[in-house]
Amino acid sequence: GKRVFQRSRNAPLRSLMARTGFRVQRNLLFASSLVRKAGIRTGGGCCLAFLRSSRRFVAMGTQPAGLSILVLGDKNDTSLEPLKQLPDGASIVAVENNPDSIEDSVLERATCVYASCKGKVGVNLPKIYSKMPNLTWVHSQTAGVDTIMFPEFANDEKVTLTNAKSVYNKSLVEYVIFAMMYFAKDCQRLLRNQRNRTWDAFFIEMIRHKTLGVVGYGDIGRDCARTAKQAFNMKIVALRRRPSLSDGDGIADEVYGPDQLHEMLGKCDYVLCAAPLTRATKHFFNADAFSAMKKSTVFLNIGRGPVCQEAALVDALASGAIRGAALDVFEKEPLSKESKLWELENLLLSPHNADLTELCRVEATEHFLELIQKSVAGEPLGNVIVDKKAGY
Amino acid sequence: GKRVFQRSRNAPLRSLMARTGFRVQRNLLFASSLVRKAGIRTGGGCCLAFLRSSRRFVAMGTQPAGLSILVLGDKNDTSLEPLKQLPDGASIVAVENNPDSIEDSVLERATCVYASCKGKVGVNLPKIYSKMPNLTWVHSQTAGVDTIMFPEFANDEKVTLTNAKSVYNKSLVEYVIFAMMYFAKDCQRLLRNQRNRTWDAFFIEMIRHKTLGVVGYGDIGRDCARTAKQAFNMKIVALRRRPSLSDGDGIADEVYGPDQLHEMLGKCDYVLCAAPLTRATKHFFNADAFSAMKKSTVFLNIGRGPVCQEAALVDALASGAIRGAALDVFEKEPLSKESKLWELENLLLSPHNADLTELCRVEATEHFLELIQKSVAGEPLGNVIVDKKAGY
Repeated sequence: GKRVFQRSRNAPLRSLMARTGFRVQRNLLFASSLVRKAGIRTGGGCCLAFLRSSRRFVAMGTQPAGLSILVLGDKNDTSLEPLKQLPDGASIVAVENNPDSIEDSVLERATCVYASCKGKVGVNLPKIYSKMPNLTWVHSQTAGVDTIMFPEFANDEKVTLTNAKSVYNKSLVEYVIFAMMYFAKDCQRLLRNQRNRTWDAFFIEMIRHKTLGVVGYGDIGRDCARTAKQAFNMKIVALRRRPSLSDGDGIADEVYGPDQLHEMLGKCDYVLCAAPLTRATKHFFNADAFSAMKKSTVFLNIGRGPVCQEAALVDALASGAIRGAALDVFEKEPLSKESKLWELENLLLSPHNADLTELCRVEATEHFLELIQKSVAGEPLGNVIVDKKAGY
Repeated sequence: GKRVFQRSRNAPLRSLMARTGFRVQRNLLFASSLVRKAGIRTGGGCCLAFLRSSRRFVAMGTQPAGLSILVLGDKNDTSLEPLKQLPDGASIVAVENNPDSIEDSVLERATCVYASCKGKVGVNLPKIYSKMPNLTWVHSQTAGVDTIMFPEFANDEKVTLTNAKSVYNKSLVEYVIFAMMYFAKDCQRLLRNQRNRTWDAFFIEMIRHKTLGVVGYGDIGRDCARTAKQAFNMKIVALRRRPSLSDGDGIADEVYGPDQLHEMLGKCDYVLCAAPLTRATKHFFNADAFSAMKKSTVFLNIGRGPVCQEAALVDALASGAIRGAALDVFEKEPLSKESKLWELENLLLSPHNADLTELCRVEATEHFLELIQKSVAGEPLGNVIVDKKAGY
């Protein structure tokens, strides 16, 4: 059962704490059965903690010393350069794209895999997985880890998965600000006028003082909202499963629960979907949701495609029920050549590249390097562990 | 001569101070001859002060009580609504677009003109100017006052001109951020791919960590730089006539003087021209300036058109010497149908409407209302006076 760590009389926990250099922190509750599992899982190097403030499990412990890293990726990828500064206690055993080229002894030695964007990890990791008995940690250079989730790995409790989640947020924030302004400044009209050599000094809009509604008010949604509010004075309304978690967060002016979706949508000039895909969010944005929006509303999706029912969105855009949309994600990717989305003038379409930037990829490796440094120094890794069961 | 006000033994000044409710402030130097003129000019209601920190003359005094305002504008213009809350001591004598419809007795009574955007002030004010013996104050709803500067008015020392300068900055800031992102996200490529139904997940750029060079680092340029730095972590290099004025302003990372233009341009990913048009700045951006930029640089002009030599810019854009440009202002406006600028794909062209927003127009009237309130309360107007000789 759960209990406050400080008061625990659980000897294995105390021992784990001593071995991992773990520090007791306020507001932490531990599920001792999970901690025991974690102790087994990483050979005593990692434990899980339930952080009351965010209600998430976080990796608090460390990986074992003597990290041997197999990089699945391209040797010439400049985004791997930060790995030249590995600390003592960590080494790279190979950088490879082709799993057949990796010797079995190398695979056996590796305790960690760095899954770079160019490593075709979804294809390559399954091929070598059974030959890696000492593997305890897979770190993904990307935020999304859907492609890595083959069953053998997803169900393997002895291998921890971490990702570069928040590293890409800044790129998504820029895309969201850009997409809102694309409509506020009526970029289509500017470009049409230019093609027609028409001088037409129309009134443009500002995003300032407009209302941005964020559905899926997690890490990414909140970063977008923060910039929208702090730099452009937008009003922020948020929707999340448990509204009370964001009361008084200093960003959201109003926070709603899922059953208040339509009420919230009616207030928004821009609606940002940054929700993960779960059974509850699939087709969350359907015909009813688009009907609840104002005719002047612009819908943005940077979360997951299937959260929006594309057929309903096509109708809403084609009929003018809403003003426009910007989509970076789609129900099926790549988007089919036959999709009606391509031909809509009031749609800004990007091929899931809103966070595809070289800068972020380099920073993702720098972020991995920080985790390695923490790991070999016996410090907690922080909040980067992926819940493999939930898939994010 | 100049002297510190507190130590002045100048009786007229002391008397003026008493009548206007003027408060002595630190760092103020007064040119007593100017103050005397100001005393005459406004019937004792206004004086000029030389503010040491900004090295500008500012209006410190007030308009005479009993402000009678003639609004040159459209009666149905919603941006005039804030004037419904005029304080005691101020009244509107007429709202008119057609000067022939205004009775002479009304013109005679008016002490103040509010030159709204829709008032065709450049045409209408000259027609009635000689019939307004009590006029002491013209306030412009716009930032630019070029069109009001007919000689009779420009040389008239008894009429003060104020404007809504900084009210429009926020709109320009949005445009500048939008224009940079238009290139960073390669909007043209996104739109072309959409037209061709091509799924092409290319790497996009971020503006973060890029260098923004601001030429004409005044009020507007600094507001753009502040948002670029604070919201998007851009590096800021600035160029102004007197670099020392911006040392340690907390925004610019480096400040250059005009003779260092080429050195500065070589460092920029984005170059923002926000300079006023003077003899020194005309064609400041010529072929040499564009040659000094990197091939990846994007040039933005929101200042005044003639600061950029358009023929040289066309060459630089067509030859790929620079990556792109966003122009909101032109050497001649409206831009001629024959201009080569229209056909350049790497140019984002807007018809001087980057600050044309309803929100700003309403706020400009709110700003005027604040000045009226200060005026009738006998408080200083603040830094809104236009140097009619300089034209800005």
